[in-house]
Amino acid sequence: MTSNDNTVNIKSRSARYHHGDLRSALIEEGLAELETKAPDQVSLREIARRAGVSATAVYRHFPDKAALMTALCKVGDERLAEAFRAAMEKAGPGEGAFRAMGQAYVRFALANRTLFRLMMTGEGPAGGPGASEEAMDVAATMLSDVLKALMPPDATAEQRRLKRIQAWAMVHGLALLMLDGRVPADDALIDKVVDTSFL
Amino acid sequence: MTSNDNTVNIKSRSARYHHGDLRSALIEEGLAELETKAPDQVSLREIARRAGVSATAVYRHFPDKAALMTALCKVGDERLAEAFRAAMEKAGPGEGAFRAMGQAYVRFALANRTLFRLMMTGEGPAGGPGASEEAMDVAATMLSDVLKALMPPDATAEQRRLKRIQAWAMVHGLALLMLDGRVPADDALIDKVVDTSFL
Repeated sequence: MTSNDNTVNIKSRSARYHHGDLRSALIEEGLAELETKAPDQVSLREIARRAGVSATAVYRHFPDKAALMTALCKVGDERLAEAFRAAMEKAGPGEGAFRAMGQAYVRFALANRTLFRLMMTGEGPAGGPGASEEAMDVAATMLSDVLKALMPPDATAEQRRLKRIQAWAMVHGLALLMLDGRVPADDALIDKVVDTSFL
Repeated sequence: MTSNDNTVNIKSRSARYHHGDLRSALIEEGLAELETKAPDQVSLREIARRAGVSATAVYRHFPDKAALMTALCKVGDERLAEAFRAAMEKAGPGEGAFRAMGQAYVRFALANRTLFRLMMTGEGPAGGPGASEEAMDVAATMLSDVLKALMPPDATAEQRRLKRIQAWAMVHGLALLMLDGRVPADDALIDKVVDTSFL
């Protein structure tokens, strides 16, 4: 195949994407890359190749790698919120919802190892966690509502805040200890460790 | 200064180290480097320069960077165990010892940011946590002994194990959320969050 054939081939594949669809396709390829590679091994050029478009077509949507990583974190934010909602709906209100949220957090981390690290640890796009403040606020409000129903009616906002930090710290720590192989990433263990004993 | 003068200078400084002292000096320089640099920015060559010895002299003690990082983690293991002992001694037995161990873990992380990550997260020398299994076992035994005194006498070894994982996960998560700026690294907050409510 000559270099000219290759150009024609890329152009014809680019033309297949409707407006907006290429962006979604690039995000899908980015998420797929994160399933097997560390963030610093992911390149926009390789994502262009996977999507069958030119690097220029990619740059139109994502001027640099950080822009793509931020978009991936945003998808992660939505997926985690969706995981919380699904788990809580299944569990019903009260202590069940509290447990379900925590267990969903750990399972999300294990199912989206690199994306979770990008979102929640110092390995994100800007050298800090990539999950948006808005997404964090949504999750904090969900958890606050659950705690309001579970804690004594005279509990203060500060007491609820401390309980929220405790709960987050516990599932965050468990997720990372499991991701790093310090604690076995055993599904049944998640249910046993994430209980309601510290409510 | 000519390159010859420089060689003489390095030799004369090398000669100042007694047997074994150079190793300690290199470890000290390595720990100092970790206070300001990420592990991948630390080089044996720079550590040689800081200690005023030749790279060859360094290689005699640490054949590669991973060997130095492993030695740094070992010093970290000892310092963390010492921090546990000091905190528990000060707090006295019972719930005080349990709280003190947890608070010491988080404070150690904040005071030794990069070393803590090397020891306890996937950023260690061999692409995994650098703290030794032996050090982890010592800490687990300390915590088990504390829990034995606090949990009901009919609690099983498995129940103590789950409580130990919960406690570790909580302080590990709090340490990393604070290191990553997700939760304010506020000293008073450590005491409030690391309490005994989930015993």
